[in-house]
Amino acid sequence: MRYGVVGTGAIGGYYGAKLARSGQEVHFLFHNDYKYVRQHGMQVNSPDGDFHLDNVLAYDSVDNMPKCDVVIVALKTVKQDLLTTLLPPLLKEDTLVLLIQNGLGVEEDLAREIPGVQLAAGLAFICVAKTRQGVVDHLDLGTLNIGDYNCRTPGRVSQLVSELRAAGVNANEVEYLEARWKKAVWNMPFNGLTVVLDSQTDELLANKASNELVRDMMLEVIGAARAQGVTTLSDDYADQLIEMTKNMKPYSPSMKLDWDYHRPMEIHYLYTRPIEIAKSAGFDMPKLKMLEEELIYKEQQRGEF
Amino acid sequence: MRYGVVGTGAIGGYYGAKLARSGQEVHFLFHNDYKYVRQHGMQVNSPDGDFHLDNVLAYDSVDNMPKCDVVIVALKTVKQDLLTTLLPPLLKEDTLVLLIQNGLGVEEDLAREIPGVQLAAGLAFICVAKTRQGVVDHLDLGTLNIGDYNCRTPGRVSQLVSELRAAGVNANEVEYLEARWKKAVWNMPFNGLTVVLDSQTDELLANKASNELVRDMMLEVIGAARAQGVTTLSDDYADQLIEMTKNMKPYSPSMKLDWDYHRPMEIHYLYTRPIEIAKSAGFDMPKLKMLEEELIYKEQQRGEF
Repeated sequence: MRYGVVGTGAIGGYYGAKLARSGQEVHFLFHNDYKYVRQHGMQVNSPDGDFHLDNVLAYDSVDNMPKCDVVIVALKTVKQDLLTTLLPPLLKEDTLVLLIQNGLGVEEDLAREIPGVQLAAGLAFICVAKTRQGVVDHLDLGTLNIGDYNCRTPGRVSQLVSELRAAGVNANEVEYLEARWKKAVWNMPFNGLTVVLDSQTDELLANKASNELVRDMMLEVIGAARAQGVTTLSDDYADQLIEMTKNMKPYSPSMKLDWDYHRPMEIHYLYTRPIEIAKSAGFDMPKLKMLEEELIYKEQQRGEF
Repeated sequence: MRYGVVGTGAIGGYYGAKLARSGQEVHFLFHNDYKYVRQHGMQVNSPDGDFHLDNVLAYDSVDNMPKCDVVIVALKTVKQDLLTTLLPPLLKEDTLVLLIQNGLGVEEDLAREIPGVQLAAGLAFICVAKTRQGVVDHLDLGTLNIGDYNCRTPGRVSQLVSELRAAGVNANEVEYLEARWKKAVWNMPFNGLTVVLDSQTDELLANKASNELVRDMMLEVIGAARAQGVTTLSDDYADQLIEMTKNMKPYSPSMKLDWDYHRPMEIHYLYTRPIEIAKSAGFDMPKLKMLEEELIYKEQQRGEF
């Protein structure tokens, strides 16, 4: 298949480079790194083995890119507006767009904005960073779970999964709604609370009051998932995630890093939309609504965006 | 009547000095200011007229104080433990203890700890500060609303109200439970949110998200009050308080000042107890519970107490 990558940061760069290295045709849309990559190619440093791509199909505009069978979108959702401009030139009737993005509602909103587009959700469990032009540092993990949202083209999702696996990525097909909500059970408490309480995951779990708050918030997300029809999530999942997180190294979620580095936070798709989606299924999330409002206050008070 | 003042800070000092100046016998328990006041007396600076008390009945221990008809308690509730030691030496069968303190549950808890004690709640609406030894600066307002909790001695509360009025204090007898909850409607959102969001009242109300959060929290308190049997509070009261607060000068509530000056916060009686009291009446306060947990986390993380 012919691949496109829109939003070639750490995540888009990593999965795209793995595919390219395995012999797939991958067209990368760059923003700042375009000139550097044209000249020097891309470097991936990884515990699985470093590698370099000499000839990268690099672009600074979608107008010059070919239509693709699969487009991997790895933009931050704060730039979601751009997709109605960036995606259409890359789409054929049977193109699958894989959204490796945070939160809930991204597929619903994009399907409304680009009628007929075929979508899947990509849930990445990976530690990866891009601190220099043209260089991706893969630190740990790498699983990419893919949930089919509305794909009509037979075999497209499973072909994507197997080509990723052939490229050395631990890709799996998962149930869309369950996968999106399961990730939200972790994301919604930790992303916002680490910002509002200026903390890391370990500090939140070591303190009795905030540990209880994290757990209550996880139960709100599990309740919302159930109200949306996810039948496989029980309250135990909160305790499992808390145990798992206690065993992780102290961690700053992406929203905490965004806040610390004065970048816009993904409040809309991590909080506003999931809370709306739950509400329209008749389920209230009072504590996560409060967290959303605290985050909006903090960001607007800082006055940078 | 013979008066005692336990906790002679700004508030206890102000109301006690007003009574003493009007000719009442007022015995003041001091902590740091004892020696200074013995030597120099007390000074009150006020828009209603400055005055000085030359001979103050000052004590550094309750053991030397006489039993009183009325004891005014104006300690911060973070020192509530002390009252089981400080109060009994001052009590006769018919003594009335007036608790000019923040929050909910102070009367319930003290009545359990000192069986038979007669209590009233004092709700002070006053701007007053003590920044130097022996000097109280009265800045604005001064109303003291008094709600009878369990007084058996006939006429004791109304005599207190009339002696305060004779001393130039705008004192009023009010319904106990309604008065405590009404003050909580303002106190619970603003005290904690100004700490967690590092803000003042005006900033919280100027921002749409935090304004909505303040209002939702006020509605939680109003709901809790109703669940406890207060029939006179409607949702309109939230909007009235928000309008009133918008018209105030930017304000840092007492908990924000405690936090800024590294003093312990009154989390227990401003949050923990009201939330428990509401819960035992079958009413949940999820957003105020979350605020309580955020405050506990912040205070424990700072690690000073």
